[in-house]
Amino acid sequence: MEGDLMVLGVWASPFVRRVQMVLDLKGIEYEYREDNDLMNKSPLLLKLNPVHKKVPVLVHHGKPIPESQVIIEYIDEKWTDKPILPLDPYDRAMARFWATYIDEKCLPAFWKAAWVSPPGEEREKACEEAYEVFGKLEAHLKEGDKKFFGGDDIGYVDIVANFLLYWFVLIGEEVTGVRILTEERFPALWECLENFKGSPIAARHLPDKDKLLSFYKSRLAATSSS
Amino acid sequence: MEGDLMVLGVWASPFVRRVQMVLDLKGIEYEYREDNDLMNKSPLLLKLNPVHKKVPVLVHHGKPIPESQVIIEYIDEKWTDKPILPLDPYDRAMARFWATYIDEKCLPAFWKAAWVSPPGEEREKACEEAYEVFGKLEAHLKEGDKKFFGGDDIGYVDIVANFLLYWFVLIGEEVTGVRILTEERFPALWECLENFKGSPIAARHLPDKDKLLSFYKSRLAATSSS
Ligand SMILES: N[C@@H](CCC(=O)N[C@@H](CS)C(=O)NCC(=O)O)C(=O)O
Ligand SMILES: N[C@@H](CCC(=O)N[C@@H](CS)C(=O)NCC(=O)O)C(=O)O
Repeated sequence: MEGDLMVLGVWASPFVRRVQMVLDLKGIEYEYREDNDLMNKSPLLLKLNPVHKKVPVLVHHGKPIPESQVIIEYIDEKWTDKPILPLDPYDRAMARFWATYIDEKCLPAFWKAAWVSPPGEEREKACEEAYEVFGKLEAHLKEGDKKFFGGDDIGYVDIVANFLLYWFVLIGEEVTGVRILTEERFPALWECLENFKGSPIAARHLPDKDKLLSFYKSRLAATSSS
Repeated sequence: MEGDLMVLGVWASPFVRRVQMVLDLKGIEYEYREDNDLMNKSPLLLKLNPVHKKVPVLVHHGKPIPESQVIIEYIDEKWTDKPILPLDPYDRAMARFWATYIDEKCLPAFWKAAWVSPPGEEREKACEEAYEVFGKLEAHLKEGDKKFFGGDDIGYVDIVANFLLYWFVLIGEEVTGVRILTEERFPALWECLENFKGSPIAARHLPDKDKLLSFYKSRLAATSSS
């Protein structure tokens, strides 16, 4: 255990898994605490992240850090071995650019299309918007012609992105029935996702598919009935 | 001139001013190009930032970097003298946390309350939301009990935040008439803003108040009539 290091998380959260993957890739030991019921947040979560009240929170020597991307940069600065972000400043800038793009553009576009908007015209419009947003990620990947966002190896953007892709595909196709990310439409993204799914780090950290599916199916049922 | 370094910007943009302030604080020379008409974007802007089509874009040795926060981190890594981000990893994490908070939470909350929502119940609700969002920033400042977000000196969060505050106050009070940031409601924020306005860097980079006001007034007129 490297000093006292704790991750407060929820097993079904891709944001929490990002942090766990980074700690794993660097070989850093830590304590994991499950904050199971986000409908009923624990006093610990409210104390550690009063601003957003969200997981993950990393606690290092008693000091809390929220927000997965902020946490990953922190870990990469504190434990410099096996860097997660690229070393070259320009490459770092591009990694930050795409990581932000994924959280600020892809994530809301996907949720709107696959979860929030009602079937019919509104959903169709949201899907068109999502295709455009994901299209830019696809174009970026194609241009680089690489196995992962990070090149030959999994890097920062893969950890931010591929987890979401896995969630997106599952939720989109199997929970709400909205297929946005398909092999036909986004071949480069799809291949990158497949590469990621086949990696040892994914095997260790992607949650069980059936468990994840039934979790989101019950959330969808709860949303629809409320 | 440090290699070839160019900023593509618009004079009225607080995001562009962030980058100019950082370059100035570090004493780095650069070429500035005005991309005046955002209703009619230049081929150069579309080429340099095809994803977002927004200013600022920094071009260093021919390579473009968009997004003000990404640009500032890049500059701080390339020119390490006179650091803009704090040096301690935990302080860096907190600076990134609040900088993100300002762009992701404060900015949309402000626009919704002061610009987008129609007068009446909807605007009132948006104002309440904005008070809550800004209240967390106020609480954070109060806790630190410092002259600037950065402590005794202007730092990363000040550059991200205080510019926006200056814009917010102007637009809110004098253009749309919605007063969100007031001294009574947010005394710590207000003081920090005043300190910032009184600093040499602000004197050099805050655009002329009357010019800014008439710019936003004509934009509001254009929005209302369309
Ligand atoms: N931007 C945050 C997002 C974290 C997030 O959305 N966490 C979810 C779980 S997947 C959460 O805690 N939700 C509780 C809530 O929204 O109230 C990050 O990157 O860490
Ligand atoms: N997140 C961007 C925001 C930049 C931005 O919104 N720039 C505005 C000028 S203030 C722009 O270029 N707008 C053009 C548009 O939205 O089409 C940053 O931090 O650089």
